[in-house]
Amino acid sequence: MSSHSTASEPKPLRLGIAGLGTVGTGTVKIIQNHAALLSKRAGRPIAITAVSARDRHRNRDIDLSDYAWEADARVLAAREDIDVFVELIGGDEGIAREAMTIALKAGKDVVTANKALLAIHGQELAELAEANGRLIRFEAAVAGGIPVIKAMTESLAGNQIRRVMGVMNGTCNYILTRMENAGLPYAEVFEEARKLGYLEADPTLDVGGIDASHKLTLLASIAFGTKPAFNAVEIEGIERVSIDDIRRAADMGYRIKLLGVAQMTARGLEQRMSPCLVPADSPLGQLQGGTNMIVVEGDSVGQIVLRGAGAGEGPTASAVMSDVIEIARNVRLPVFGQPASTLLSSQAARTAVPAAYYLRLELADKPGALAKVASVLGDAGISIDRMRQYGNDRHQQGAAPVLIVTHKTTPDAIDHAIEALPRTGVITGEPVELRIEEV
Amino acid sequence: MSSHSTASEPKPLRLGIAGLGTVGTGTVKIIQNHAALLSKRAGRPIAITAVSARDRHRNRDIDLSDYAWEADARVLAAREDIDVFVELIGGDEGIAREAMTIALKAGKDVVTANKALLAIHGQELAELAEANGRLIRFEAAVAGGIPVIKAMTESLAGNQIRRVMGVMNGTCNYILTRMENAGLPYAEVFEEARKLGYLEADPTLDVGGIDASHKLTLLASIAFGTKPAFNAVEIEGIERVSIDDIRRAADMGYRIKLLGVAQMTARGLEQRMSPCLVPADSPLGQLQGGTNMIVVEGDSVGQIVLRGAGAGEGPTASAVMSDVIEIARNVRLPVFGQPASTLLSSQAARTAVPAAYYLRLELADKPGALAKVASVLGDAGISIDRMRQYGNDRHQQGAAPVLIVTHKTTPDAIDHAIEALPRTGVITGEPVELRIEEV
Repeated sequence: MSSHSTASEPKPLRLGIAGLGTVGTGTVKIIQNHAALLSKRAGRPIAITAVSARDRHRNRDIDLSDYAWEADARVLAAREDIDVFVELIGGDEGIAREAMTIALKAGKDVVTANKALLAIHGQELAELAEANGRLIRFEAAVAGGIPVIKAMTESLAGNQIRRVMGVMNGTCNYILTRMENAGLPYAEVFEEARKLGYLEADPTLDVGGIDASHKLTLLASIAFGTKPAFNAVEIEGIERVSIDDIRRAADMGYRIKLLGVAQMTARGLEQRMSPCLVPADSPLGQLQGGTNMIVVEGDSVGQIVLRGAGAGEGPTASAVMSDVIEIARNVRLPVFGQPASTLLSSQAARTAVPAAYYLRLELADKPGALAKVASVLGDAGISIDRMRQYGNDRHQQGAAPVLIVTHKTTPDAIDHAIEALPRTGVITGEPVELRIEEV
Repeated sequence: MSSHSTASEPKPLRLGIAGLGTVGTGTVKIIQNHAALLSKRAGRPIAITAVSARDRHRNRDIDLSDYAWEADARVLAAREDIDVFVELIGGDEGIAREAMTIALKAGKDVVTANKALLAIHGQELAELAEANGRLIRFEAAVAGGIPVIKAMTESLAGNQIRRVMGVMNGTCNYILTRMENAGLPYAEVFEEARKLGYLEADPTLDVGGIDASHKLTLLASIAFGTKPAFNAVEIEGIERVSIDDIRRAADMGYRIKLLGVAQMTARGLEQRMSPCLVPADSPLGQLQGGTNMIVVEGDSVGQIVLRGAGAGEGPTASAVMSDVIEIARNVRLPVFGQPASTLLSSQAARTAVPAAYYLRLELADKPGALAKVASVLGDAGISIDRMRQYGNDRHQQGAAPVLIVTHKTTPDAIDHAIEALPRTGVITGEPVELRIEEV
């Protein structure tokens, strides 16, 4: 494009793109297919100067011949002829971190989709960026094409945020909805997802709730003006979610979602990622498959719900481009919505906000069994909202599943009850306990 | 605040707020209650210099004593000691238009919630703003606290937008959901809404679909890079929606919403606001009460759904503040996302995109009646997807309601059929036809 530029025409914004996987390829496609549109909206042409990837010869069915090739992203990051380093390599250490550091020191703005890197090293990188008068933009790092970073740093900036939560990992939501819709056990659907290529190379990043927790960490930082604190997230994945619980929860009008919740309390910042029950007819409860949803609650705006594709070439590249266009428009904001130096050290708090809980017990077929359970709950200060006892489970002779939905109680009270229940001698197997998050 | 500022401290952004109704009052409250938070996020203090409203002595339970008072918004707009004119007066002519023009010529940026003014005079005002190097920001003009203007001008700027649609008038959605939930006729719920103060002084702005069409006009302009063309919107309000149709539609798995749709076609830009059927289990179908929802479809991002409070003091003031903060941060974008001079004259096209349609007929109890109806539809090239004939309606002796859901067909074909049906002599009363928008 620069070849066409004249004195009158504004200078193109020159990108160096590192990483040509799904997102990198999608980004190149948008720039190639929408040159005129982008130029009109950005106020100047968006040009790719150089690219970098592990395998130069892999077929990506895009034409890269106009761009310089760098075998090493760190060399790309320092090139004099780029204005913006687009980091689509991934990983919280190694090349991505090194290259981003080099780019910032070399005076480049950075656009990235790297949630892990920012969740773990975001504070230090934000400080480096701001010390060098540079930007790091990361709309693509959270919930794919859903514009949640911009919504929180800009649109809701007049609000004291009360809570931010959501379904942030499409693979987990795919697995959970597929289990429910097909009535299949976790292990089977997990294998399906693997074969379909929905899982990360290390699947625990998905099903272990780590990837989603990286995203939650970034949202919490913007929402509450605190330093990103990934290590403070209480994380539980979906591995222990059984088709049984999905079915029982449905009987009671709930769906099970891997839900991330961040909220500021008098005791400090609570950040949790865990399988939760939500009402089946709530926006979160109705989320099917790979779709993501973020719910933000502010003191003035009330509840805002954002929904869209949480991953994939097009949606994630769309988010990358929104950041690139903002830089082209010379929009320059602090990385987490306020100067990194003003972010508070988030005082991490273990979850103590009360909630209703779902309990599933296998009750031995003995007289007075239920009474014993009820009294354990009572002793723990837990009152019962709804209870269902089912007939003997064909799988477990002499044991009958019992479902309990409690009134609001504390996680501590639930832990005490779960600990005490086996000692009654009337329940077989492990009691299952799931939080019912208020949405 | 400026009284506290020191040489080192950044200059406050000085606002002149015209209009102290719900939104104006809410805006003042946010600025008074969140001074420190706003200053941290905006990078500088947000200060109110002067205010203006019709009645100085009305009790708004906010303290205005620190602000200069102007009886005339036009005088406020020209004050030397304001940087931003916040126009919350409303109306597409008169004071609001005059004051905004004065403010822009006097070199002030403008923040407004005035959808009518921008839908009708937006092009001329945007040109004036850009000629003077000024901004007009209007997040609060569309869907209250939902950040849809920012999402479209910024977050989705890398996308070719295919369609934008949504429920943009909370009052209409309240009326329709209340009719369904309480089984009440339109007239009764309309009176309720009036008593509850949900209706504009001129209720046709709400129930006539005009207010929602103003909003649609602005979204279409951003989505397709066209000049705002309110006069080109095909508008139908909710007055003819009967409790009968709401019930019948529900029987078939649909809900009736006042839906605005804008999409670019080969023939030009289609903009329509009309009562439509949407699947009851779709995000739009599930929208209850005053909540708004905007659905944007882009070529890369796919479908993004934004949901939140569409009106009210807090949500709308939240949107006003997001614009104010953006100006404080020195974010300067063209009014409709690209220079006003580059906006195309939207070639208005009458709706021709095919859709399924819902038809309700009162069929005379005569042999062969249904066959006659079916052949009229056949002659019009309309094929039937589903049909239901009910028993004789107790109200209308000898007439039985018949519901028909057609396969996709054109509005023209439907018009022809509607015109021809009475001539069969087998239907009593007016046939009802409603579009089933694909969502």
